[in-house]
Amino acid sequence: MNKELMTARILEAKVMKGLTWEHLAEAVGMSPVWTTSACLGMNSMTEDKAFMLCEALGLDKDVAQALQVCPHKAWDNAVPQDPLVYRLYEVVGVYGDTLKALIHEKFGDGIMSAIDFTMTVDKEENPAGDRVVLTLNGKFLPYKAW
Amino acid sequence: MNKELMTARILEAKVMKGLTWEHLAEAVGMSPVWTTSACLGMNSMTEDKAFMLCEALGLDKDVAQALQVCPHKAWDNAVPQDPLVYRLYEVVGVYGDTLKALIHEKFGDGIMSAIDFTMTVDKEENPAGDRVVLTLNGKFLPYKAW
Amino acid sequence: MNKELMTARILEAKVMKGLTWEHLAEAVGMSPVWTTSACLGMNSMTEDKAFMLCEALGLDKDVAQALQVCPHKAWDNAVPQDPLVYRLYEVVGVYGDTLKALIHEKFGDGIMSAIDFTMTVDKEENPAGDRVVLTLNGKFLPYKAW
Amino acid sequence: MNKELMTARILEAKVMKGLTWEHLAEAVGMSPVWTTSACLGMNSMTEDKAFMLCEALGLDKDVAQALQVCPHKAWDNAVPQDPLVYRLYEVVGVYGDTLKALIHEKFGDGIMSAIDFTMTVDKEENPAGDRVVLTLNGKFLPYKAW
Amino acid sequence: MNKELMTARILEAKVMKGLTWEHLAEAVGMSPVWTTSACLGMNSMTEDKAFMLCEALGLDKDVAQALQVCPHKAWDNAVPQDPLVYRLYEVVGVYGDTLKALIHEKFGDGIMSAIDFTMTVDKEENPAGDRVVLTLNGKFLPYKAW
Amino acid sequence: MNKELMTARILEAKVMKGLTWEHLAEAVGMSPVWTTSACLGMNSMTEDKAFMLCEALGLDKDVAQALQVCPHKAWDNAVPQDPLVYRLYEVVGVYGDTLKALIHEKFGDGIMSAIDFTMTVDKEENPAGDRVVLTLNGKFLPYKAW
Amino acid sequence: MNKELMTARILEAKVMKGLTWEHLAEAVGMSPVWTTSACLGMNSMTEDKAFMLCEALGLDKDVAQALQVCPHKAWDNAVPQDPLVYRLYEVVGVYGDTLKALIHEKFGDGIMSAIDFTMTVDKEENPAGDRVVLTLNGKFLPYKAW
Amino acid sequence: MNKELMTARILEAKVMKGLTWEHLAEAVGMSPVWTTSACLGMNSMTEDKAFMLCEALGLDKDVAQALQVCPHKAWDNAVPQDPLVYRLYEVVGVYGDTLKALIHEKFGDGIMSAIDFTMTVDKEENPAGDRVVLTLNGKFLPYKAW
Amino acid sequence: MNKELMTARILEAKVMKGLTWEHLAEAVGMSPVWTTSACLGMNSMTEDKAFMLCEALGLDKDVAQALQVCPHKAWDNAVPQDPLVYRLYEVVGVYGDTLKALIHEKFGDGIMSAIDFTMTVDKEENPAGDRVVLTLNGKFLPYKAW
Amino acid sequence: MNKELMTARILEAKVMKGLTWEHLAEAVGMSPVWTTSACLGMNSMTEDKAFMLCEALGLDKDVAQALQVCPHKAWDNAVPQDPLVYRLYEVVGVYGDTLKALIHEKFGDGIMSAIDFTMTVDKEENPAGDRVVLTLNGKFLPYKAW
Repeated sequence: MNKELMTARILEAKVMKGLTWEHLAEAVGMSPVWTTSACLGMNSMTEDKAFMLCEALGLDKDVAQALQVCPHKAWDNAVPQDPLVYRLYEVVGVYGDTLKALIHEKFGDGIMSAIDFTMTVDKEENPAGDRVVLTLNGKFLPYKAW
Repeated sequence: MNKELMTARILEAKVMKGLTWEHLAEAVGMSPVWTTSACLGMNSMTEDKAFMLCEALGLDKDVAQALQVCPHKAWDNAVPQDPLVYRLYEVVGVYGDTLKALIHEKFGDGIMSAIDFTMTVDKEENPAGDRVVLTLNGKFLPYKAW
Repeated sequence: MNKELMTARILEAKVMKGLTWEHLAEAVGMSPVWTTSACLGMNSMTEDKAFMLCEALGLDKDVAQALQVCPHKAWDNAVPQDPLVYRLYEVVGVYGDTLKALIHEKFGDGIMSAIDFTMTVDKEENPAGDRVVLTLNGKFLPYKAW
Repeated sequence: MNKELMTARILEAKVMKGLTWEHLAEAVGMSPVWTTSACLGMNSMTEDKAFMLCEALGLDKDVAQALQVCPHKAWDNAVPQDPLVYRLYEVVGVYGDTLKALIHEKFGDGIMSAIDFTMTVDKEENPAGDRVVLTLNGKFLPYKAW
Repeated sequence: MNKELMTARILEAKVMKGLTWEHLAEAVGMSPVWTTSACLGMNSMTEDKAFMLCEALGLDKDVAQALQVCPHKAWDNAVPQDPLVYRLYEVVGVYGDTLKALIHEKFGDGIMSAIDFTMTVDKEENPAGDRVVLTLNGKFLPYKAW
Repeated sequence: MNKELMTARILEAKVMKGLTWEHLAEAVGMSPVWTTSACLGMNSMTEDKAFMLCEALGLDKDVAQALQVCPHKAWDNAVPQDPLVYRLYEVVGVYGDTLKALIHEKFGDGIMSAIDFTMTVDKEENPAGDRVVLTLNGKFLPYKAW
Repeated sequence: MNKELMTARILEAKVMKGLTWEHLAEAVGMSPVWTTSACLGMNSMTEDKAFMLCEALGLDKDVAQALQVCPHKAWDNAVPQDPLVYRLYEVVGVYGDTLKALIHEKFGDGIMSAIDFTMTVDKEENPAGDRVVLTLNGKFLPYKAW
Repeated sequence: MNKELMTARILEAKVMKGLTWEHLAEAVGMSPVWTTSACLGMNSMTEDKAFMLCEALGLDKDVAQALQVCPHKAWDNAVPQDPLVYRLYEVVGVYGDTLKALIHEKFGDGIMSAIDFTMTVDKEENPAGDRVVLTLNGKFLPYKAW
Repeated sequence: MNKELMTARILEAKVMKGLTWEHLAEAVGMSPVWTTSACLGMNSMTEDKAFMLCEALGLDKDVAQALQVCPHKAWDNAVPQDPLVYRLYEVVGVYGDTLKALIHEKFGDGIMSAIDFTMTVDKEENPAGDRVVLTLNGKFLPYKAW
Repeated sequence: MNKELMTARILEAKVMKGLTWEHLAEAVGMSPVWTTSACLGMNSMTEDKAFMLCEALGLDKDVAQALQVCPHKAWDNAVPQDPLVYRLYEVVGVYGDTLKALIHEKFGDGIMSAIDFTMTVDKEENPAGDRVVLTLNGKFLPYKAW
């Protein structure tokens, strides 16, 4: 079973069981962002997490095996088109050099890892309109000199 | 004076005065991310902020005027090449659909604004290696039906 | 049922029933542009609107459910090829900087929202040839400084 | 004098004289959108309009001549990056097929001209936030069969 | 029935009946270029023309209905690869600015319409090698000033 | 002297002398399209034509030499943006396969040469609006089998 | 039968019969390059050649008919990726201007035809490693002046 | 002195001395293709060849040094636009898979080197029009298995 | 059987038999990198290696035949998206000119062959985190002068 | 002083002093690859290394300061054109999935760091032709689950 079919089966079961991503995250004892990304085929699960997820969704071993495969990560368009995703791309375009300047000033020459990396999505209630709060947390990796 | 020359003048004065972006942010009473982005030509300042910045840097009225111009925001490559900026782009590619799924589940159909938007960069000290923490905070905008 | 199949089913029923987009808009009590865009998979409907539409077209619950899903908005070519759509793209290319100059002068630094946004299509009768009138109405969003 | 230099001279004089695009439009007796677009090098003026504009700005004959040249219309990126312009591009992407469906239904097979075309920018005051109203008015051109 | 299937059915019937594009054009009383383009899905026919064509080819009502649908015009590659089509693209690239200069000199600022447009293909016999003669005839559309 | 400078010098002299492209074509005894394309750097002239052109414009030997150089033909964007040139590109996109079908039917497998090629621009007066008539005449080249 | 299926059928029969491209070329009395290109769908055969080929391969009339259709020539990537094909592309990139300079010097302003064109592939035995010899032979086409 | 300036100096001297590429090739005792490519900055010369070339052209040591530098080979457009160069690109597109099939059949799995490579340009006189003959000769490199 | 199906069959059998790439490499007596690349369709095997591989995996003659076919090497995106592969692409981008400078200094003008080429992947154990060691070994090919 | 000027000054001094990259690496006590990359503007030096380099080359403080700036890493073309660099790109394209498969099998799900990374270039003498040996050594970074 490939990742596309795996995701389709998970989404179908999730709707039928009336579960949210937060429910699934609790079922495997991980964060919602990571759990969702694994279900969408963008991260791999350990065997025990994969079986916990399949148990919660009533899915069989094939799905659990597919969840453990190291994914080939890819996305559709170099410049995303969906407005929600494009706004994130725009933030990278507009603030990329600003972040580079500030990270170099605070940490030195290096990067923020996208591998040793966690992320959360929160809702900040606000009478003027609720706000989405994304927190990206990545290890600083200094460029090695040799 | 265009934005490119304005930025060059600011960077030169910043080095000569030995100031950090945090110093400049304090001088104008704003956050480091926003202040830096205005200096790099990606946001416009009000007249008073522009003059406060120029005073801190010992720069003249031309720079203050350029800081107030609405910028034409643009970036070099559709897919960024600098490793620090690319990692942010990769996060959008890998986690874009995950964020879309979670935001729709928590907020409904809509997007996170990149205009009514703030961001901070923090350093999280960690014995296994310090971590970069980026917090993006944007107003949720529901799609209007009409 | 995915959005592509949903659209195919709606278009088929619309032809068989001999209904226009204006009829469908009236059936759900919304504007023709918004109603059409939801049928083409570019906006999501609330449950009651979705059922009103399906009733008008004699379609079943599967279509109504698909209409409620938050769409992944995408389009074929970065530069559109169909002449009708290309002309709109050309207007953005030719007049983009003009609109930017005028909006900044009238409203300050910010953008016209494409989310808190409505649009109408009208026919202006004219002996020299009828004219298409498109009215775009979007909330002005000032750039937040922080 | 080429169009780039012409625009630079006009923008400089406009700032020095403290004039708005609306003032300039009144000076030549035309609309603000058309007047601005001609000043930005995207339309050509007749000789009398060109001289009226230069008189209002205190500019010489070279600028007036450049204003009369048929422009080579072009724009920077196939996909615009400035957020204000991108939102317009996004509207074309998201609503292009919707507009195509509605125009064909109302007018038959053909397009909205981008040449026999006018546009206005208006401000709609609104306590929940002012709104930008763009009105595009183009002649319907039916495809000729031969 | 979509346009792709419609074209396939027409091409198949055309071969089986041993008809040329010129025959089909006579059958509908229109030019060969326009008739061929409608059969290839690039123009729409009126109901009577569609039935005349289907009668000539022995095709049923489904094809006649598909012929009347307003097409979504698109082509494969932004830069065409087939040598016959590429040569036309090359002519546009090499002579585009020349045609622009001559049309502006003869007609003023405006364009040649590709909508109010006709085209013919003729064979000019020549002992040194026959020649292809393409005649493009489009209405001149002056840029509207407003 | 390179071709860019050559063109600039010719355009400047042409304006100062108040000559049209047709005048220049007559001066060298060639067609307006070919003469203009050579002046714009897209064709090379023989020595005598080059000197006749320079004489008509009062230009010196440097320009005449540059006119004789075999040009490196190139254009700005793979997809042209200027509306006049784009319409020609659109015709190639929309009618490319139609022309291919008709040329193959009339001539066999081969192409219309863009090298052994001539073109004219004419004005067809018409009370409903004048029309631009472009005539492309290229030798048919059959694919050689070997 | 389309060209893709035709090629698949030919390749399958060629393997089963244990024939080489040279055998097939002999069977039709043409060169290996041209014969192979027709089998791969990049050239059309006359009726007699098509039947000779099908006889050699034991294929039926459908394949013979498909071989006679004028192909729509296209290739996968603008920049080829297969190393064997990329090296040829690289030769064009590295030596393109060199060939242009030498051809213009030897022949005047014009091109080498890719239509009135033949090519051979030969093996030059060499103790230091055999060498591939490609010979391209195209008619020189001078640019027509008119 | 960089390669661009070096080439400009060589071309200028070549015109002033009235020399052809063949003369220059004789002067350095190498082939015209290789000599031209080195002059255009696409190959490097040994010290003695560089000085022989400069002597023939009356150029100084700076040019001779620049000729010895290993070039950074690059070309303008991924898809070339000049018609002469495009025809070569088209040959690679149309016949790439044919050449791949024939080379694999004659030599096995591997490529024709573009480094251990020579090329000649010849003129084949022909009453029906002279022909350009390009001969590419590259070492066959078998893929190493390890 | 094409290469895609061949790879799918090999991967399936490899999982079912619980074999690693190193096991398969041992089974055919070749290196893991080369063996894996042949299984993934990027190199061809000799007949005996192909049968040894199929024996180890319990696969039939069809797979063995497919393994011997010269592959058409291609990859998905010009800029790879999977993070593991992108990092390698980034190394080429960041260090490409550095490697060019050093190879030219050590070897002269030429390239490292990607055909007469071997590669190994090793694990270097390290208490601060294990390290991946890739060794690329390619024959230096000097540019031939002729 | 920006990085481009810095590199130009270093290259000029290196030639004048007759030094190799290995000499410069010894002068700063680092590897040739890293030292060269810093001189080409792709890595930053600490203050002491920068001064050691400038001393060896007889360059002043401006160059030493430029060497310490965190670079904005970028490269010319998404697909490199220089043959030496392209071969490395081709290796990534051809062997990217092979390396992914082997690294996942040996290390688990994760990547090879391009930041905590070293590289060497060696010459392996070989009577059949010397070989270039590149050794890439990067820390394995496992994907963090959270």
